[in-house]
Parts: sequence; C-alpha cells; structure tokens
Amino acid sequence: MERPRHQGMAKNTYMRWRLPLVCLLWEVAMIVLFGVFVRFGPEADAHWEEEKRELNLTSDMENDFYFRYPSFQDVHVMIFVGFGFLMTFLKRYGFGAVGFNFLLAAFGIQWALLMQGWFHSFKNGKILIGVENLINADFCVGSVCIAFGAILGKTSPIQLLVMTLFQVTLFSVNEYILLNLLHVKDAGGSMTIHTFGAYFGLTVTRILYRPNLEQSKDKQGSVYHSDLFAMIGTLYLWMYWPSFNSAISDHGDAQHRSAINTYCSLAACVLTTMAFSSMLQKKGKLDMVHIQNATLAGGVAVGTSAEMMLTPYGSLIVGSISGIVSTVGYVYFTPFLESRLHIQDTCGIHNLHAMPGLIGGIVGAITAAAATEDVYGKEGFIKAFDFTGVYQTRTPSVQGGFQAAGIVVSLLMAFVGGAIVGGILKLPIWGDAAAENCFEDEVYWEVPEDEESDVYHMHNPDKPASP
Amino acid sequence: MERPRHQGMAKNTYMRWRLPLVCLLWEVAMIVLFGVFVRFGPEADAHWEEEKRELNLTSDMENDFYFRYPSFQDVHVMIFVGFGFLMTFLKRYGFGAVGFNFLLAAFGIQWALLMQGWFHSFKNGKILIGVENLINADFCVGSVCIAFGAILGKTSPIQLLVMTLFQVTLFSVNEYILLNLLHVKDAGGSMTIHTFGAYFGLTVTRILYRPNLEQSKDKQGSVYHSDLFAMIGTLYLWMYWPSFNSAISDHGDAQHRSAINTYCSLAACVLTTMAFSSMLQKKGKLDMVHIQNATLAGGVAVGTSAEMMLTPYGSLIVGSISGIVSTVGYVYFTPFLESRLHIQDTCGIHNLHAMPGLIGGIVGAITAAAATEDVYGKEGFIKAFDFTGVYQTRTPSVQGGFQAAGIVVSLLMAFVGGAIVGGILKLPIWGDAAAENCFEDEVYWEVPEDEESDVYHMHNPDKPASP
Amino acid sequence: MERPRHQGMAKNTYMRWRLPLVCLLWEVAMIVLFGVFVRFGPEADAHWEEEKRELNLTSDMENDFYFRYPSFQDVHVMIFVGFGFLMTFLKRYGFGAVGFNFLLAAFGIQWALLMQGWFHSFKNGKILIGVENLINADFCVGSVCIAFGAILGKTSPIQLLVMTLFQVTLFSVNEYILLNLLHVKDAGGSMTIHTFGAYFGLTVTRILYRPNLEQSKDKQGSVYHSDLFAMIGTLYLWMYWPSFNSAISDHGDAQHRSAINTYCSLAACVLTTMAFSSMLQKKGKLDMVHIQNATLAGGVAVGTSAEMMLTPYGSLIVGSISGIVSTVGYVYFTPFLESRLHIQDTCGIHNLHAMPGLIGGIVGAITAAAATEDVYGKEGFIKAFDFTGVYQTRTPSVQGGFQAAGIVVSLLMAFVGGAIVGGILKLPIWGDAAAENCFEDEVYWEVPEDEESDVYHMHNPDKPASP
Repeated sequence: MERPRHQGMAKNTYMRWRLPLVCLLWEVAMIVLFGVFVRFGPEADAHWEEEKRELNLTSDMENDFYFRYPSFQDVHVMIFVGFGFLMTFLKRYGFGAVGFNFLLAAFGIQWALLMQGWFHSFKNGKILIGVENLINADFCVGSVCIAFGAILGKTSPIQLLVMTLFQVTLFSVNEYILLNLLHVKDAGGSMTIHTFGAYFGLTVTRILYRPNLEQSKDKQGSVYHSDLFAMIGTLYLWMYWPSFNSAISDHGDAQHRSAINTYCSLAACVLTTMAFSSMLQKKGKLDMVHIQNATLAGGVAVGTSAEMMLTPYGSLIVGSISGIVSTVGYVYFTPFLESRLHIQDTCGIHNLHAMPGLIGGIVGAITAAAATEDVYGKEGFIKAFDFTGVYQTRTPSVQGGFQAAGIVVSLLMAFVGGAIVGGILKLPIWGDAAAENCFEDEVYWEVPEDEESDVYHMHNPDKPASP
Repeated sequence: MERPRHQGMAKNTYMRWRLPLVCLLWEVAMIVLFGVFVRFGPEADAHWEEEKRELNLTSDMENDFYFRYPSFQDVHVMIFVGFGFLMTFLKRYGFGAVGFNFLLAAFGIQWALLMQGWFHSFKNGKILIGVENLINADFCVGSVCIAFGAILGKTSPIQLLVMTLFQVTLFSVNEYILLNLLHVKDAGGSMTIHTFGAYFGLTVTRILYRPNLEQSKDKQGSVYHSDLFAMIGTLYLWMYWPSFNSAISDHGDAQHRSAINTYCSLAACVLTTMAFSSMLQKKGKLDMVHIQNATLAGGVAVGTSAEMMLTPYGSLIVGSISGIVSTVGYVYFTPFLESRLHIQDTCGIHNLHAMPGLIGGIVGAITAAAATEDVYGKEGFIKAFDFTGVYQTRTPSVQGGFQAAGIVVSLLMAFVGGAIVGGILKLPIWGDAAAENCFEDEVYWEVPEDEESDVYHMHNPDKPASP
Repeated sequence: MERPRHQGMAKNTYMRWRLPLVCLLWEVAMIVLFGVFVRFGPEADAHWEEEKRELNLTSDMENDFYFRYPSFQDVHVMIFVGFGFLMTFLKRYGFGAVGFNFLLAAFGIQWALLMQGWFHSFKNGKILIGVENLINADFCVGSVCIAFGAILGKTSPIQLLVMTLFQVTLFSVNEYILLNLLHVKDAGGSMTIHTFGAYFGLTVTRILYRPNLEQSKDKQGSVYHSDLFAMIGTLYLWMYWPSFNSAISDHGDAQHRSAINTYCSLAACVLTTMAFSSMLQKKGKLDMVHIQNATLAGGVAVGTSAEMMLTPYGSLIVGSISGIVSTVGYVYFTPFLESRLHIQDTCGIHNLHAMPGLIGGIVGAITAAAATEDVYGKEGFIKAFDFTGVYQTRTPSVQGGFQAAGIVVSLLMAFVGGAIVGGILKLPIWGDAAAENCFEDEVYWEVPEDEESDVYHMHNPDKPASP
C-alpha cells in the first residue's frame, strides 16, 4: 500500500530517464578524461623505490601517505557522514539529505580531481595524484555540500549534479586565483571553501526563490529522532575539524599547530553558542538548531589562520566570537533574509559558513599582517608564508592585503557564479518538485510505509489497526 | 507489561543455558589456547629496544604500528559499525543486527588470531602477534559478517557462533592455500573475504531454506528511521574502504596506491548505482536498498587489484561496472534466487559481495597478467608480486593463471564448506525461531515497550492511551 | 502548539540568565588565563625548524604529532560521540545526553589544558601545549563524562558545569599525586579516570539523592530506536578503546602492546557479557543495557596494565572477568545501591567504570609487581616503569605497592571531593528540575512536536489526526 500523494503534483518530477542519463554520461566522461589525464603521483606509483633512492629517502615513512592519510580519512568522514547527517534534521527528508549528498559528493570528487589537477598537479600532460589530491577533492566538494545546505529539500538530484559540475569548476578557478596568483594562505579554506561555497549557495537559492514555500511548512521542522541523527553529523564535523584545517598544512609544526588552534576555537565556540541559544529565547531553553550548527562556526572561522601563529588564546577569542555571531544569525538574520531578501536558506548556511567564513578570512588577513620574524623565527617565517622565489620580498602587511583581496575575489566569484548557475538551474527541465512537495522524500525515493504505528498498536484488540 | 507473542512459538528458542554455556566454554578455550600459543611480536614486545638496535632502526616510527594502526582502526569500524549498522535496516531486527554481529565478531577475532597465527605467524611454537595480525583477524571476521547477511533474522545466536567457529577455520585454510601455496595477491580480499564469505553464506542459507518464510513477510521491510541507521553502516563502509584495501599492503607506494584506486572505484560506483536504481523502477524513484548496498560493490571489486597498477581510470571502470551489476542483481537476481533456487538472502549479499567479489578476482587476474616491468619498474615489479625466492621466475601471465585458480579454490571451499556447516546448523538443537518469528528481536532480546505512541498521544484527552 | 507540561513544576528551571552568564564568564576567564599562560609547545611552534636542528632530527615524522594524532582523534570521538550517544538510551533525554555532554566536555577540555598544564607542562611561566596535552585534556574530561552518567537526567546544565569545574581540578591534583609523587603507571587511566571519575560521580549522586524519583519512572526506560542510538556510542567506545589505552604510552612497542592487550580484553569481555546477560534473566533473553555497557568493562580493566607485559592471554582473562562482574553488577548491585544505599546511578557507572576501574588498578599493581628483567629485557624494564633518576632503585614489588596506593588515593579523592562538590550542587540555586520532570528534555530544550504520528495517520480519513 503506497501512501497517496495528497496534493496534485503540478510539476514533472519523473526521474527515470533523466537522472540515469546524466549519471551515466558523466561517469563515462570521467572515465575518458581520467584515461587521458590521470596517473599515479610518484609516491603512489610502483616506481617509488627508484624515487626513494633519487630523493635519498631512507624510510617508507617519508611517503606523504603517512603524513596525511589519517587526516584524509577524517575529512572524508566529514564530507559524507558529517554533512550528510547534519542535514537529516528535517522530519521527512533524511533519505534526500544523506543520499543526495552522497551522490553529488561522489561525482564532485571525480570532477575535482580533474579540475584541481589541471591547475595544480599537471606535469608533462598528465595529472599526477596522491593523497593530497584526494584531500583537496574532498575539500572542493565540501563547498558544494555547503551550498546544498541552502537549497536542501527544494531541488531535484539532477539540479544538484548540474550545480556540482559548475561549482567545482568555479571553485577550482577561484582557488587557483587565490593560492597561485594572489599567493594567499588558506589551508582550512575559510575563503575558498566556506565563504565561496556559502555565498554561492545563497545566491543560487535567491535565484530559485519559491514564493509559495509555506505550503510545505509542516515538513520544514524536525522530529525528535531526526534531531539526534543530525547530531551525529554535527559531532563528526566538530571532532574532525582539527584534521580538516591541518590536512594540507606543511609537514611538522604547521599540521600540529593547525590542529591545536582548531581544537581550541571549537571548544570556545560551544560555550558561547549555548549561552546565546539560551539567552535569545524567551523561555531560556536551548535550541537544537543552534547546537547542531553554530557550535561548528569556530572551525570555519580559524580555517585561514589555524596554521599561523594564531596562538591558543587567539583561537579561543575567534571561536567565542563566531559562536555568538552564528547563533545570533539563526535567531535574527535567517528570518530577515527570507522575508526581506527572499533568500530561503534551509540549513542556515549563512550563519554557519558565510559569516564565519568572512570572519575567518579577516582573521587570517590580520594574523598574516601581524606576523613577525620574532614570533615565527627566521626560517619559520619564510616557511609559514612561502616567502620564497618571486615572493621573497613580500612583507607581512602586504600579505595581509592580499589575504583581504582573496576574500573579495571569493565573494565576487560566488555572487557572479551563483547567479549564472542559479539561472541555469531555473530552467524548467530539471525535474524539481512543486512547492507543496518540497522537503519530502517521497518525491524522489521509494519510502517504506511506516508500519511502526501498526507495530505499536497491533496488540490492542479493541482498536482497529492503523492504516 | 510485555508485548504478548501473537503466534504460538513452535520452536524452543530458550537461550538461558545453551548460549551462556557456549560463550563461556569457548572463551575458556580461547584463554587456554592463547596461554599456550600467543605472545607479543617483536614490535610489541618490551624487548623492542634491543630489536631496534639489531635491525639498525633509528626511529620508533619504523615500528609497524605507525604504518598500519590508523588503517586498522578504520577496518575495525567497518566490521563493528559498518556491518553492524548496515544490517539494521529491518524494522524489528536492529538489536539482532548490531548485537549478534558484535558477538560473532568478538568471538571470531580471537579464533582468527589463533587460526591465522598458526598458518602465518608461528615461530618456535608461539604465535607472535602485532597490529597486522589484528587487521587480518578483522578481515577474517569480515567474511563471517558477510555470510551473516544472508541468514540475518533467521538464526539463533548459537548458530551464528557455531558458524563463526567453522567459517573462520575454513577461511584460514583457504587463505593459506591462496596466499602461500598459490602465491596469489589479494590484499583487499576480493577472493578470500568476499567471494568465499558470500558463497559460503549463500550455501548455508540454501541448506537452511525455510519454505514458510512469507509468514514473517511483514517484518522483512524497513521503516524510515531503520533505513537511516543502515546508512550509517553504509557510509562507514564506503568511506573507510580505501583503508580496508590498503591496510595490509606493502609499506609505501602500495598502501598509497591501494587507497587511491579504491577511492576512485567507489566514487564511480555511486553514480552507476544511482543511475540503475532509478532506471529499473517504473516510477523512476531511487531505492534505499540499492544505495545502502550497491554503492559498496566498487570497493569489493578492486579488492585484489587495488595495490596493483590498476590506474585511476581502470578503477573508475571497475567501479562503474560493479555498481551496475550489483543494482541489477538486487532487482532481478535476488527474487530469482529465492523463488527458483530457494536461496533466501536477507541482505542481498549475492549482489554486494558474491558477484563483485568474482569481478574483483577476475580483474585481479587480468591486472596481474597484464603487468610489465615497464609499468612497474624493475624493482617495483618484483616487489609488487613478490617474485622472489622460488617465485623468481614466475611470469605475469602465469601469475594471472594462479590468481584465477584462487577464485576457483575459494568457490569450492565456500560451496563444500557451506554445505557441511549448513548441515550442522540444520540440527534441531541450536534454538532458531519458527518462520513466523523470524526478523523479530523479541525472540532473543528484551525489547522495550515502545511507549512512543503513548508519548505522541498522551495529551489527547479524547482518546484512550495506547496499550 | 507546545506540548503542555502535565505536572506542575515546583522548581525554577528557567535558564535564560543563569546559564548564559556562567558560560560567558567562564569563557572569558579561559581566554584571559590562556592569554597569560598557554603557548604552543616546541613541536607545534613555528620555531620547529630550529628545534629539529637542535635535536638532530632528520624528519618531520619525528614530530610527536604523527605518533599520537590518530589516537587523539579516536579518543576525541570516544568523548563526544562515545559518551554522548551511550547516554541517549533514555527515551526522552537524547538532547540532554548528547548536548550536555558536549557542553561540559567543551568547557572541561579548556580548563583541563590549564590545570594539567600547570602540573605537567609548565616552563618559564608558560604552559607549552602539544597533541599529548590535547589527549590528556580529553582524558580528564572523560572522568567528568563518567560522573555525568550517574546523575544523567537529574541535573541542570549549570550544575554540570559547576561539577566539571571542580572535578577537573580534583582530577588534576589526583593525577599529579599518582603520576608524579607516587610515580605510578596508569596510561589508560583505570585509576585516574575510571575509579576516580566513577566514585566521584556516585558520591555526588548519593548527596543529591531524590526520594521521589519514581515519579519519573515512566521516562527512565528506553525505546527501540533510543537503544540503537546508544549502540553507536557503545561501539565507538569499544572500537577505539585500544587507542584510548595506547594514546599516551611511550612511542614504539608500548603503544603497540597497549593496543593489542586492549583489543584482546574487549573481545573476551563481549562473550562473558552476553553469557551472563542471558543467564541472569529468567527468560534467557539478552538485555541491551548489558550489551551497551558491560561489553566495555574490558577496556576499563586493562587501563593500567595494557602497556605492561600483561600478555594477550592475560588480557583475555581480565576482560572475561570484568564482563562478568559488570553484568552481575547491573542485575544485582544497581538495584541494591538504589534501594539500600540511596545511590541513584542512571547509567550504572558503578558497573561499567567503578568496579572495572578497581579491577584495573589491582591488575596493574599485580602486573607491575610481577615484572622481571627477563620478561621485559633490561632496557625495556627500565623504560616501561621509568625506573630512572630517583626511581632508579625501585623494585617491581615496591612499584606494585605504590600502584596499590594509587587506588586508595584515587578513592579518597573521589569520596571527599564528591561529597564536597555534591554539597555545592545541592544548593537550591542551580535550576535543577523537580523529580517528576527528571529524564525529560523539555525542561531545558526546545523539543519539536512529534508529528510522526500525524504523518503515519494522515491518510486515514476516518480517524481525526492526532494532536
């Protein structure tokens, strides 16, 4: 017995040929492009023994795999379980949250390996990949997962795949401009991942504005257990964020320092989030939406500066502020954005990623500008900011200026790119659902009849079983 | 107030003395056998300082612990959370899925340490264990978890323990034949773990065929939240599979390469699974059963070849194909197996492990046969296939033949072993449930009354509280 | 529509100003203290390049980060997901379990970094932190999470924060006495974390005894899905416990050995727990409470001795015994403690942490006393027990005596400290709930209306929708 759809579906959400076609064609394209371009990097290639001898390495331990693989796995968990489950808070959109996140990320990492590879790992006509490329691909896809949060429940899987295609492309271009042209530091991606991803997503959802979304208002909330599922996502993001911010930092002290700064920032962020969550409610009760989201702002906000000498107390300050800003955002900004600016932001990414991302960019610029040889040591100073080659003469304050420029570029890319991609997604060919069917898994998923109620009542002979 | 059993229980499922007896006797046996045989390997023994000096190692980092421990923990999560939660999809068998998996795996790893130890780590009358043994024990138990998937919901915990005892034994013999006698490569266990485990389980479930299983049909489905719990299992298996396939590969490039190949294969597999899931349904909707299972086939299918120079695009191809095969299997083969061959495969392990395992064995044979010194480098070639000692003169094509022989041996061991063990499990002394009580936790577990319905309704004064 | 509170709330649980005030003031205090005291240790500082040269290190791999970071992340998961979800078993206290655990742990790690820093990492007026400090902070907070288990559902978040402040302080003093003054080994914290934490918590809950707690008896049980959520916590604790016990052991063999011993102990513990769970029930069914908790006792019970030459079979014995003791505790001791000693122990920490912790301390003392140069090797012996400097002449039997003294000191600190802190928490200013509102999230959390029942029934036109 299938649950009947109670409102007429005005739109054609039939996926049977469109979705398979997109998935299969794109996968074939990936295979062809990988076949032409992608090869193992020297540390993953069977010629490694010779490589080792050439580089005079005495131990297999010097293989980058051992420096980064544990962090890679943590980042991988953040992308698939972290983001996936964070979005299961909606009462009837758990399949879509976890499943579509899975789909777009699995496609996105393939495309990101290519895009980022062409920009950063291209040698003699081949993209040479290793564990750092896998991490960067996951990072790139992270920005898509963020944007997904803004349009959660309102788009078809095809729209998500199309968005992923374009967003990964734009991400890679933006990343190239920041890291290579502006020579900006952004290991944890406050600018490249969070600021870009969030404002891109917010622009897309603005373009896709649905005036009648209140028709599905009854499905926009959570239920008790969906909030617990979401906490799985929250905690994995929170716990592994030190790995996220340190995953691609320089070996040694930089990875170590990034992890410590992020750990401190996140701890502080929890306290200020709890404080403001209680304070901003008349009844003084805590709101799970804040706990699930704003507690993570501290990780976003030290994304740029974590590998710098931000210091533990600096991290506490940044984390504290970002928890406050994010919680205030959930209470005041999100309703304002929706009612005044027509920005319907399902997960509140403006509060979790956009504002903390901006804070992160700014803190990074300040921390860079304030760097001195005294604090970093002569060698450490050069190493931390890569002041070598053509950048040999760059001063901290100039670096700070370029960092700030990175924020502006990321914002521009997000607004322009988001507007274009939003326009593409508005075409009536992608199979999105009508307003009254938003936030409802049944549109795209085989949903089991919930017989739990039957189970509960089955032994009560006096009452007829529920439907 | 206990929920009354509505159908008469024809069978004696009373566990009170049988289960404790088996558990305690076997644990005592483990203690005795460990006492006689098991000792710390040199890298875990307090004599390590002397060992280090003898081996001329300058750093504690050279201890195998640091090469493999992160992968070990990922594999550990796959066995206990991955397999455990993957099987919670049934609406009323979550306790059994997670709990019995916990029980059999906890027993199995002890017995596997002994069995595999006698075959591979036996020196001067002692089994010397280190982190690699822990990984191998987890791997061995993985094959039991796979077989458990076929008989999920239809067996008593004692049957599962008995099956574990025999299957671990047979696994170790089969593994010894493949790795030591045939000198086959199978780091990720496409043959030893998946092909063997799955066909073993399918044979067992065939022997245990229950003609009246439709009596518990109402419990064979999922409910909304049980599908989300299962996704936890799916995602942890999916995310950590690169660790699974690389955990016991050679240090350096081989571990690195295995992780990359597996990452690529799994990503591709998600796309083809989604495509075929939608395509094979009249309504074009996605089916959670496919997403939960077929997305993992890509990991199985590169289990043998991941540490070889399969190349990233080769991995994409293998992953794509296995996703298709697996999804098609769920739609067409599983019903066929049940109706025609009387193979009742609760979790569809034929689609997730058996067929992709075969693919993995074949791809491994082909990849080995196609290996050249050009691609691997002279040293890399010898190292990758261990062409040393008596195997010095083995050629790639001969290796390919032996790899293929490994598949056949694994199948034979699975069919013969499964038939014998199935026969043992058919004895009417193990306390399995009647057909109408299958897939129901209440048979072996204290299940809390679900008062949620009370909670939901408690404030409705017009309706009497639910039972 | 808010669910009306059905019983009058006698107590003032209004948190709006009190909770924010405590959180914000304390966070400001943390920032000031961190600003004055906390700096990066040499391995996380940008001067690391110079440090490396001084220490004659040739590789970044020698940075402690790479020895300990994977274990740190596992421990981090245990504290936040492990303890947090373990306590979600209550049907209506999931938010409080995960959320308050999150809050107290996030505060606690900051305060622990300071307290432990002053005792152990204080140089030239600064606390120098690195990854080992992060692990130790997590460990310290672990003892608070344990104590939280005893008072779960009966305290306000402010009480938990106050308890955390004091308990972290006392923990650090106790740890200093044991590790520095008594020169005791306790890498996995059987004494410092488990014995101390559990008896502290039990003393606190004794002081806070609530005679009318049966008024909330209907909420003290679990429901089907809450038991599955709790299993997530259980499994993560179980799987990562080898990392817990090895995280701060010496590099090399000691970490390796700790992981193996813990793995073995935990495996054995599962079997004896299952055996006794079934045996002690008239109907012979397994009880999820035991599976969720007693299976972990094996990890607690080798906390002190895991890094010693306990041997794998020794670990099996210890694990087997502790599983039995813990399960028997749940069946017989917990009811006894409540009815006779007025100790209301919500999670049964007496069975999971207190008794196994004592076992762990005793096993550690015996294992230390039984150590010989023959078993450890001359160098290994000195290294394992740090018999250097003033401890150069200490014998194993003397060490065993000091280990035993460590148990006594931990117990004394727990009883005296718990009594004082319990007294403070009894003050009527902290906003705890009345007895009839215990174990109920609605007191401190915005709880979503559970519309699931509506969803279930919405298509039944004959029955009015549920409230």
